[in-house]
Amino acid sequence: MIIHSFTNDYSEGCHPSILQALTESNLIQQSGYGDDAYTLSAIRSIRNKIGDDNAEVHLISGGTLTNLLVLASILKPFESVIAAQTGHISTHETGAIEATGHKIEEVFTSDGKLTPELIKPVLNKFPEYHTVKPRVVYISNSTEIGTIYNKKELTDLSEFCKENDLILFMDGARLPSALTAASNDLTLADVAHLTDVFYIGGTKSGALLGEAVVITNDTLKKDFKYHQKQRGAMMAKGRAIGIQFDQLLKDDLIFKLAAHANTLATKIRNTVEELGYSFLTESDSNQIFPILPNKVIDKLILKYGFYIWEPVDADNSAIRMVTSWATPEDKVNLFINDLKEISKLW
Amino acid sequence: MIIHSFTNDYSEGCHPSILQALTESNLIQQSGYGDDAYTLSAIRSIRNKIGDDNAEVHLISGGTLTNLLVLASILKPFESVIAAQTGHISTHETGAIEATGHKIEEVFTSDGKLTPELIKPVLNKFPEYHTVKPRVVYISNSTEIGTIYNKKELTDLSEFCKENDLILFMDGARLPSALTAASNDLTLADVAHLTDVFYIGGTKSGALLGEAVVITNDTLKKDFKYHQKQRGAMMAKGRAIGIQFDQLLKDDLIFKLAAHANTLATKIRNTVEELGYSFLTESDSNQIFPILPNKVIDKLILKYGFYIWEPVDADNSAIRMVTSWATPEDKVNLFINDLKEISKLW
Amino acid sequence: MIIHSFTNDYSEGCHPSILQALTESNLIQQSGYGDDAYTLSAIRSIRNKIGDDNAEVHLISGGTLTNLLVLASILKPFESVIAAQTGHISTHETGAIEATGHKIEEVFTSDGKLTPELIKPVLNKFPEYHTVKPRVVYISNSTEIGTIYNKKELTDLSEFCKENDLILFMDGARLPSALTAASNDLTLADVAHLTDVFYIGGTKSGALLGEAVVITNDTLKKDFKYHQKQRGAMMAKGRAIGIQFDQLLKDDLIFKLAAHANTLATKIRNTVEELGYSFLTESDSNQIFPILPNKVIDKLILKYGFYIWEPVDADNSAIRMVTSWATPEDKVNLFINDLKEISKLW
Amino acid sequence: MIIHSFTNDYSEGCHPSILQALTESNLIQQSGYGDDAYTLSAIRSIRNKIGDDNAEVHLISGGTLTNLLVLASILKPFESVIAAQTGHISTHETGAIEATGHKIEEVFTSDGKLTPELIKPVLNKFPEYHTVKPRVVYISNSTEIGTIYNKKELTDLSEFCKENDLILFMDGARLPSALTAASNDLTLADVAHLTDVFYIGGTKSGALLGEAVVITNDTLKKDFKYHQKQRGAMMAKGRAIGIQFDQLLKDDLIFKLAAHANTLATKIRNTVEELGYSFLTESDSNQIFPILPNKVIDKLILKYGFYIWEPVDADNSAIRMVTSWATPEDKVNLFINDLKEISKLW
Repeated sequence: MIIHSFTNDYSEGCHPSILQALTESNLIQQSGYGDDAYTLSAIRSIRNKIGDDNAEVHLISGGTLTNLLVLASILKPFESVIAAQTGHISTHETGAIEATGHKIEEVFTSDGKLTPELIKPVLNKFPEYHTVKPRVVYISNSTEIGTIYNKKELTDLSEFCKENDLILFMDGARLPSALTAASNDLTLADVAHLTDVFYIGGTKSGALLGEAVVITNDTLKKDFKYHQKQRGAMMAKGRAIGIQFDQLLKDDLIFKLAAHANTLATKIRNTVEELGYSFLTESDSNQIFPILPNKVIDKLILKYGFYIWEPVDADNSAIRMVTSWATPEDKVNLFINDLKEISKLW
Repeated sequence: MIIHSFTNDYSEGCHPSILQALTESNLIQQSGYGDDAYTLSAIRSIRNKIGDDNAEVHLISGGTLTNLLVLASILKPFESVIAAQTGHISTHETGAIEATGHKIEEVFTSDGKLTPELIKPVLNKFPEYHTVKPRVVYISNSTEIGTIYNKKELTDLSEFCKENDLILFMDGARLPSALTAASNDLTLADVAHLTDVFYIGGTKSGALLGEAVVITNDTLKKDFKYHQKQRGAMMAKGRAIGIQFDQLLKDDLIFKLAAHANTLATKIRNTVEELGYSFLTESDSNQIFPILPNKVIDKLILKYGFYIWEPVDADNSAIRMVTSWATPEDKVNLFINDLKEISKLW
Repeated sequence: MIIHSFTNDYSEGCHPSILQALTESNLIQQSGYGDDAYTLSAIRSIRNKIGDDNAEVHLISGGTLTNLLVLASILKPFESVIAAQTGHISTHETGAIEATGHKIEEVFTSDGKLTPELIKPVLNKFPEYHTVKPRVVYISNSTEIGTIYNKKELTDLSEFCKENDLILFMDGARLPSALTAASNDLTLADVAHLTDVFYIGGTKSGALLGEAVVITNDTLKKDFKYHQKQRGAMMAKGRAIGIQFDQLLKDDLIFKLAAHANTLATKIRNTVEELGYSFLTESDSNQIFPILPNKVIDKLILKYGFYIWEPVDADNSAIRMVTSWATPEDKVNLFINDLKEISKLW
Repeated sequence: MIIHSFTNDYSEGCHPSILQALTESNLIQQSGYGDDAYTLSAIRSIRNKIGDDNAEVHLISGGTLTNLLVLASILKPFESVIAAQTGHISTHETGAIEATGHKIEEVFTSDGKLTPELIKPVLNKFPEYHTVKPRVVYISNSTEIGTIYNKKELTDLSEFCKENDLILFMDGARLPSALTAASNDLTLADVAHLTDVFYIGGTKSGALLGEAVVITNDTLKKDFKYHQKQRGAMMAKGRAIGIQFDQLLKDDLIFKLAAHANTLATKIRNTVEELGYSFLTESDSNQIFPILPNKVIDKLILKYGFYIWEPVDADNSAIRMVTSWATPEDKVNLFINDLKEISKLW
């Protein structure tokens, strides 16, 4: 019997205020395809929050669809995107980007983050015409392994991209978690200012579905809706996502929910540390990767859901634990107690 | 001040039972990516309804995404899809099918429906290798102009496709309306039996979003989920569509809602006929195309929403009126009265 | 025993001066990928001939590869190309253009030529974002059915395209034949001036292989070589095409060869007319489409190669006869005599 | 003044016997698109040589076009190709494979060759549906850095591929050089038997252009010509390549020419060794990568053409030298003498 699953941050439905808003607005007739009042209100909220009245905002149903749509809208046929080898587009989107015709140039990085130093060698191409031309740098914040960019790192990357005529695109499927992590010093406005295009993940932050793409670079705005419709990313009832973001953005609800998830992940992390265990990656976001003895894991997994990420040595493995807006603190407490008890056995 | 919009069938939210089910299930943890209990229940309902336990069922967020996904999963690079010139993929999907690399061979047909006779000339290709190879026949039921296929027509088409090694794919964005039209003699099981793959539209039939793809041809089933993930069509919270179809399929709710829409469209149609007006197309589904004097249209449009479809002559135009599960009968009555009053003026 | 084949204009090798030039230059070391001296000389010849020192010229191995390369280099994902239903890209390239992701919007035209009037309806799209956006107009000169554009027609088309922000692209696989037809009033410089990009066909005009793409519109020049390499259209030994165009452009050899082909086609055409037969299309280029009694065709085909194009009525069919730079006049004379003799029989 | 260029193996034209054959056959009328007598004769020669009467053979104009065509014809949208990080498709084809929609999974290998051990980790994918599915293993023989596969290595790879349902595709742009290298123990028949599809490079082995694709796996044969036409890889005058392979295959001319190139490369290699220099890679094919002092390189490059491949340390760099069927022995002797003289200076 599983007490609680920490397998991912999309096991539950959505924040109750969204269900209430869906119910209240249900029979009000609205325009389709993203021209409804709720979507427009959500767009205004984002523009206010980042202080950019000209930002283009589009609401898309999911992360892979968003990634392929944004990249296909930017890249010419011979242009490539640079990404970490751990990047979601590199590993877990079934070749979605290549299916739009574009090469991902994968860069090895141990912490899931890109730096100018890591990107430079990729730009050094030869001979002309015979290689792809790097055009976009794709980063995730938080990354797929829980780490986050600080302001200095993102600023360096942003400047490097500008100097090298590269577009900086941030996959923000877990951006609310990143921006509410204890060590974070970035604001949403910083992100908007330092990237050319980014998105705020709704699916993993309290919505049923939906990612809000924000385009701040003027050259990328034109005709985006054509791309959106072509890739099947323009929903007839755009309101279904619009209402959700409209709610999540009220009173910073989306960030409060992310902070809740982070707090609980940190609680687990602290216990893991106290017990003398280490981590695969340094994370204060909602994904942590404790390295535990296999014997401990074997016991825990009878009562809690989580991924066994990878073996570290003969006796220990890294696991992935994820908390969310919906994770109950009492379940975290149960887990912590069980972890302590089991650890005492050896 | 607009009294009511008959512009389309996606102006409202969803049937209240869906909101209730979303609320009740909200905090129950479920697997992601379509492996949740609600999706599995919805799949069972569809299999029961069509009497095919081996049918593959996948829930997709919207119609264009479904069309491009299904066709990209079937067609080899040099194969084409045959469609009516009025087909949704031919006209209103921003080249989504071509963007997956495939030619649509468009056939002119006045009633939006394909027949073996219309398809035959397309198969007559020459010389070998220099032309695309037709592989799929795409039809819509109801069509984009409100007409529906009867059992004889669909059977003829089905047999012709089998004889010519063609896959028959039905876009069922408005299938519930077609199957509940007064003149319909097809069952859902017939549709499943006579096509190789089809879908049941949720978005236009009472859901917030979602189309249920049903694959009955064994050769098309393998690896569909790879295609689904690659095209961005696999939602993390698959439950968000699963719950909706699970509700809509209970007690044939989806068909009851469609019948409601058809009844109201028929009520308007009868009035139009009584007043001596004609129609652009013959339709007893939820989309009708009355031809009205421009003078009448100019008055009506001040109070009701609808599309002015196309001019018919100097003084008359066809309009498109669409009813839905959410259309209130009293608003239809108001419209009918207004139409009668205005028509008296001349 | 077939005396001579008039089936197409690519049945023989190449003009002997090309073989001589290949032999003389054979062991001279040259740069690869189109940077050899012969290619550069050919480019200079074309630039001189059209009076445009800034024209970009690229040599490509064949027509389909050229068409897909040029269009893929111009079109954004959601943009389309408008072409005649008889256009080579529409019918005989196995979906090559769609395979690059783009829709061809086919326009019906009885003489294979496009006009502003034929294009206008295609531009009238609605609603925004839901349809492809026409961007290129593709024409062939001579067309696939032997007709040619005159200066007035091409000028009208050119102006219309400029007014509507459309790129005009001429497939010139048989351009030398068009420009040397008796009724032609266009120069190569006119073609360069009135289009944005066009090509001069080598394969059908005396070369073993090769088409010379000429880009005069500045906005289309950048990065073309990236597209060229990506599509497999940049030959390591670019000299192999360079030498051929270098020879064909000396003393207008390519046009003299085309004039020879036209003269012989006209000779056949005149006989057909004298004998009281008609034609499927009006052509004074090197492709003619006589309509002959099936009884005559049955006799002729025992001695001569040609396509039976299509039945015209129960007793008569159109055939396609093609002459080339290599067609011997004595074989044409034999054909003419045989046609006269056979026609006398009935 | 450059005495001779060793920059690549495509600086000259073609073997004189090809020019003679082109001349002799020039006015003989032949069918187009690869159905000519010369192509058919070349196909028979290859089938005889590999002892497989059912092998499908197609002649393509160049290497990149061949690679993208073969891979696009095999791979389903979600399938990937595994290649060495140094593979031509990985580095020097401007994203040609990705432009057909497929991911290349690049494997690091120091000698340019793949082994089962290197491939195994790529096959270990998780979770299902979320990653591409590896389907083809692409290898080059000789590799891009001059190394070759021996029979044991190719057999191991072949067996591994069969066990894992992977297609083995050999890029043979320099296959004749590989098969005539001193250390080679593979025959052309071995290659045909151990791979599913491979090609024999003509461009770098004495032809003006052309690669001969040989498909031995029955499941890959069907409809190849449709793919060929669609990618612009079916030449109207197929004879232009057919004649060349027909000549090159007579009396094993292509292998004699390759042996000539290898002998001269070995002569240079021996001198480099005698002088105490080392190499970047171990090669007895026609590409060698000596590591020379920069001071020596600076002198040599005034008289000979070659690539400076990469710096090895502050004072030394690897260069790439390539010999070909056309390399004159006396130029090699001059180079050797100069290398000896220059090396004495320090």
